[in-house]
Amino acid sequence: MPELHELTANAAAQGIREGEITPVELMEALLDRTNALEPRLKAWVYMDEEAALLDAAQKQHELEGGAPVGPLHGVPVGLKDIYYTAGIPTTACSRLYAGFIPDHDATTVALLKGSGAIVMGKTVTTEFACMDPSPTLNPWNPFHTPGGSSSGSAVSVASRMCPVALGSQTVGSVLRPASYNGVVGFKPSFSRVSRYGVIPVSWSLDHVGWMSRSVEDAALLLQVLAGPDPNDSVASHEPVPDYLDGLDSALPPRIGVVRQFFWEHADEEVQQHTDAAVEKLRLAGAPVEEVDLPSSIATAIEDQQVVMAVEGAAFHQPMFERRGTEYQPKLREMLGRGLSTSSTNYSRAQEHRQQFIVEMARLAEQVDVLLTPSTPTPALADLTNTGNTMFQGPWTSCGLPVITIPSGLAESGLPLGVQIAGAFFKEKELLAAARWCEKVLDVNLAPPL
Amino acid sequence: MPELHELTANAAAQGIREGEITPVELMEALLDRTNALEPRLKAWVYMDEEAALLDAAQKQHELEGGAPVGPLHGVPVGLKDIYYTAGIPTTACSRLYAGFIPDHDATTVALLKGSGAIVMGKTVTTEFACMDPSPTLNPWNPFHTPGGSSSGSAVSVASRMCPVALGSQTVGSVLRPASYNGVVGFKPSFSRVSRYGVIPVSWSLDHVGWMSRSVEDAALLLQVLAGPDPNDSVASHEPVPDYLDGLDSALPPRIGVVRQFFWEHADEEVQQHTDAAVEKLRLAGAPVEEVDLPSSIATAIEDQQVVMAVEGAAFHQPMFERRGTEYQPKLREMLGRGLSTSSTNYSRAQEHRQQFIVEMARLAEQVDVLLTPSTPTPALADLTNTGNTMFQGPWTSCGLPVITIPSGLAESGLPLGVQIAGAFFKEKELLAAARWCEKVLDVNLAPPL
Repeated sequence: MPELHELTANAAAQGIREGEITPVELMEALLDRTNALEPRLKAWVYMDEEAALLDAAQKQHELEGGAPVGPLHGVPVGLKDIYYTAGIPTTACSRLYAGFIPDHDATTVALLKGSGAIVMGKTVTTEFACMDPSPTLNPWNPFHTPGGSSSGSAVSVASRMCPVALGSQTVGSVLRPASYNGVVGFKPSFSRVSRYGVIPVSWSLDHVGWMSRSVEDAALLLQVLAGPDPNDSVASHEPVPDYLDGLDSALPPRIGVVRQFFWEHADEEVQQHTDAAVEKLRLAGAPVEEVDLPSSIATAIEDQQVVMAVEGAAFHQPMFERRGTEYQPKLREMLGRGLSTSSTNYSRAQEHRQQFIVEMARLAEQVDVLLTPSTPTPALADLTNTGNTMFQGPWTSCGLPVITIPSGLAESGLPLGVQIAGAFFKEKELLAAARWCEKVLDVNLAPPL
Repeated sequence: MPELHELTANAAAQGIREGEITPVELMEALLDRTNALEPRLKAWVYMDEEAALLDAAQKQHELEGGAPVGPLHGVPVGLKDIYYTAGIPTTACSRLYAGFIPDHDATTVALLKGSGAIVMGKTVTTEFACMDPSPTLNPWNPFHTPGGSSSGSAVSVASRMCPVALGSQTVGSVLRPASYNGVVGFKPSFSRVSRYGVIPVSWSLDHVGWMSRSVEDAALLLQVLAGPDPNDSVASHEPVPDYLDGLDSALPPRIGVVRQFFWEHADEEVQQHTDAAVEKLRLAGAPVEEVDLPSSIATAIEDQQVVMAVEGAAFHQPMFERRGTEYQPKLREMLGRGLSTSSTNYSRAQEHRQQFIVEMARLAEQVDVLLTPSTPTPALADLTNTGNTMFQGPWTSCGLPVITIPSGLAESGLPLGVQIAGAFFKEKELLAAARWCEKVLDVNLAPPL
């Protein structure tokens, strides 16, 4: 058996169920790992080791008592600090939420707990899941950005402090940091998972998402989290399929490669790297074709910026009017911009976006999955910003499900990934296709810690 | 055979196909009728009798030549003056569009022509399909409003100047005037029919709709108009079923009566009248139950006003900034309000509305159809406004398909109707249920002209 901190969520849960490891052993191993690395990496904003160990002991006790266990029984998870956690500080890493302790859990947190997972702690986010860099460092190279906004979730999973962690994506906040850190990042279709109890950025763009070290773990979390929610009527009532069933035995997917826009904005190394990955998938049997984006891509990035700024301002307005100077500079600028955007400009952005959503949904129906590089470059040696979001933005704006899987290392020694998107609510097909690609590419990255 | 001007579109098309009447005879009868009534009713803003007769002669010629004919071959239709018509003035009854002659047809107009229909003329709309009363008079009583904004379409159909006419509904502009004039009014689900070439009010609220004198005609028009459109990517690619097949043989529908909100805001006469209609449907075999609206109804009306004002302003802004004083007062007020609405308020209204849309879609899935009175009162003796839109607004805001059918006369001698809504994209089921109700209620209204 590999070292305990190397276990995926699924392997850990299985080991616990089968009595090969105990929740306490696992938690101790992860806490040891965290204590060794956290001073360098700064991935966590809150952790209560004693509570985590007590919880693990309780899980062990339940197991020994023969109680029925959920699919994540005894598995520690990290939570981006925008998820409400009952009795635990939830600050969005902002002084404006300092001291806030929710009296209830986000629906997703309650579902994780209900499945037997243990909240290991709260991971660092950029302030309010926006653009100002966080203190978290990239475990591959501390002079390169770890990405954002879910920086702590990406780094905690990449550095093996925990197997899985929740993040959120409004533009590029899950898949970008996942790719920069060499892990899997996934966000489901808009409305597939409840957002109740998650501090919002932008109501029409925000998605819950997560980081893991395998496609299987991404599917396992979706199985736990997908479904309706009386507290969030926007969360879909569509039936939830068995995402794990057949995950490992999918046929080669029909891949639509999106060169337009993505190859144009990627650096040469990323272009060649992605070409090579596509060629490997093709040789393994996947039919590959090139597909074009709809013309509505032309304003998609700009529209999304307008929408995010206005909707962010709509949420923060009361607090911003009283305490605007306490926000970090990039977020302050964005909220000011949102407040000064006219309603008619915002309306036009949403009108364009409606067209983009419809056209992208149709594009995604034409093949099994759409493939692009995950980022225009690997994580850059620039800690003043969290990196370029433009390869994630279109998928968040149109609400399609999307995943990044590691595909290798750049010359700089930093990770690269490929981004794979599916049709609306076709997460099962997307995850099976991603699992097939994961097996073919056979890339497992661990930072040199 | 009834008088030619009494024929429904379907009966006229059938009579033409079977050689019982000719397109020229029909057109002549309708033009005679129009010439007799139009000076009193003012339903039309543009008509070219010679062109209409020429077109009818051409249709007759095609028929005699044995050419294949469409489902509306030789049937005259009216078009609200916001539908682009190639070579024919399209002014939205506004001096701001005076002299505008489009070089192409709206997609819906092209589809009507393709089905063999003859454009008889353009019907009066309130300015830009908004709230300032039009000169059109109610054929039941000229001191009572005909409703709006599709006033000419409702009155031309009610007064038997044409069998069917296109309107549009952003809040209550099809079903309200239809009910006030004793005819059938229908709007399909949001995105079921192309809006290309229709002068917009509000991109997220506007629906194409139409007036007829039978549910069957409403279904016939939907058959012609539903479907995708390369010029309007928002128009759905969902398959178009055969709306006429089985229309007449539906089983009694399971009816959800929505007393909450609708009975509260209806006058006593409308309450009792609708109760009696429901009782008649129940006695004829329809299972009737009472259903509650979601709590999001609380702000639905207000949210819709904000959305309409802002999106209207987004369209009119360039023209309004130059020629604001030329708009009629109610529209001028609305556009000014839209321009001064903050983007954050508009965002909050759309956010509430997203919840309302989802919750109403779920409500509609619980029964076969939802039934309410069509209007809080019959058309009132007040020509300074076009009547209360609040019974239509929720259905337009949530995008569900909805139809009004005549249910009788009020003490004032003015028509009343019942409004029947269906689930999203379940127009086939809705129309069959409405046809069943139409047969049971067996109300045929003709104004005393």
